[in-house]
Order: sequence, then structure tokens, then C-alpha cells
Amino acid sequence: MISKILVAIDGSKHADKAFEYASDLAKKAEARLLIIHVFEELGNIGYSIAKELELRDREMLQKYQSRAKKLVTDTYVDAVESKGNDVAEEILHIADKENIDTIVVGSRGISEAKEFLLGSVSYKVSHYAKCPVIIVR
Amino acid sequence: MISKILVAIDGSKHADKAFEYASDLAKKAEARLLIIHVFEELGNIGYSIAKELELRDREMLQKYQSRAKKLVTDTYVDAVESKGNDVAEEILHIADKENIDTIVVGSRGISEAKEFLLGSVSYKVSHYAKCPVIIVR
Repeated sequence: MISKILVAIDGSKHADKAFEYASDLAKKAEARLLIIHVFEELGNIGYSIAKELELRDREMLQKYQSRAKKLVTDTYVDAVESKGNDVAEEILHIADKENIDTIVVGSRGISEAKEFLLGSVSYKVSHYAKCPVIIVR
Repeated sequence: MISKILVAIDGSKHADKAFEYASDLAKKAEARLLIIHVFEELGNIGYSIAKELELRDREMLQKYQSRAKKLVTDTYVDAVESKGNDVAEEILHIADKENIDTIVVGSRGISEAKEFLLGSVSYKVSHYAKCPVIIVR
């Protein structure tokens, strides 16, 4: 039932908590853990800045992957980077493609307004996912 | 991290799935499982009908408790019934009082409209809970 967990990270505090929860869950359930980062395509920045941000994000993803390998088990951890202008759509798409049975997201992403109790990504994912979604605060 | 799980049941198909997910999680995480049912106080029904519904709901809760004891471990399962006119508020209140670290709810309750992707209870719980919330479909 809990055998393939996806966690989405973006460098935010909430996503970090989601990562820790997902790692703990993967370890306890002896499930595979797929860490994903969606690189948000922003139209209004130059090519070199975009490349720099992409590099920084890739390094972040690699760090999470290393952490997860220590927390869970080496062979059970994978990481995927993706690009898109709708982060939630990308998460849902990858979850479908990879036959994920549990999606873990932070309650709010890095660039999301604090006025809302749920950020737009976790809101959309929790509404449209076909599998159980864990929202971590 | 995952040591005290609350699952809310109401007789709906989604809540049943939530129950199964929560039981599986409790077993794998060796966590305690608290099954709750909130008896919704409806103003417009007579006393004897209300008592009858309450009895029916209590039996349902006991059945879930028995199922959980088989699925998880005998000593790790508790059940609580509660009354209120706001089911989400009751769930959040009990979660607080019982130091719950993971709340599991079905995506939609027994009386909730199918037009919405999330029912009002899971919507409210996922927005206002202080701990991680799992929405099961």
C-alpha cells in the first residue's frame, strides 16, 4: 500500500520538513523514495541567470538525495528534476508516470504568500492527485 | 516522528480507504492508532431518531476498532466518539488534545457533494491542522 513515495522539494522550510517526514515514512514502510524538484520556468529572466539558478537547484537536489540515502537505504532513493511553469502539474504528472502511491508536499512553497494556510502547489496537488497526499507543516 | 495517528471515519467509502491506509501506516511505523467518529449534531431530527443514529454510529466505530486490532496490534488501537456540529473542528480539537502527529482523512465524507474534489471536512482539516495531514482517495 505504501511502496513508492514521492516528495517534492524546493528549498523551503516546509519542503524540508516534508522531506524528513517522507524519509521517515520510506524507512518505516520499506518503500522507495523519489525526490523531485521542479525548476520553475520564469519567462522574465535572462539565459545565464536561469542557468545559474538551475545549477543551484540541481546541487540542492543532489544534497537531498545524499541525505535521503543516509536516512533511508541507498538503493531505495531516486531523484528527478523537472521543468515547467506549473509546479503542481509537474508533480502530478511525475506521480502518474512513476506509479507513486503517496505524495508528500510541504504546506507552502518557497515563493508562496504567508497569508494563505496552504500554498497553491499543495492546494492543487491535494485536490487533483489520484493517490493519497500528505501535507506537512 | 510518526507515533500517534488519528483517523476519522464516518461510514463513507473514502473514510474506509483512509482507515485502511492509516492501519497500514500504524503497523509499519509501529505507531498508535486512534480511530474517531464525530457524531454530527443535527438540529432538525427528533430525539429518538438521533439516539438510533448514535447507536448505529457507535456500532460502526466498534467494528472499525475490531478490524484495526487485527490489522495493527491489539494494544495500539483506541477509539473515541465525539459530538459536534462542526466535524473538522472536532477532529482538530481531538488531534490537539491527544498529541496526534499524523491525521488521516478521506477526501470526501458521507454527506459531501461530489462536485467538489475535496469535501469540506478534509479541506478544513488540511488547512488548519498543526501536524501533517494525509488525504486519502
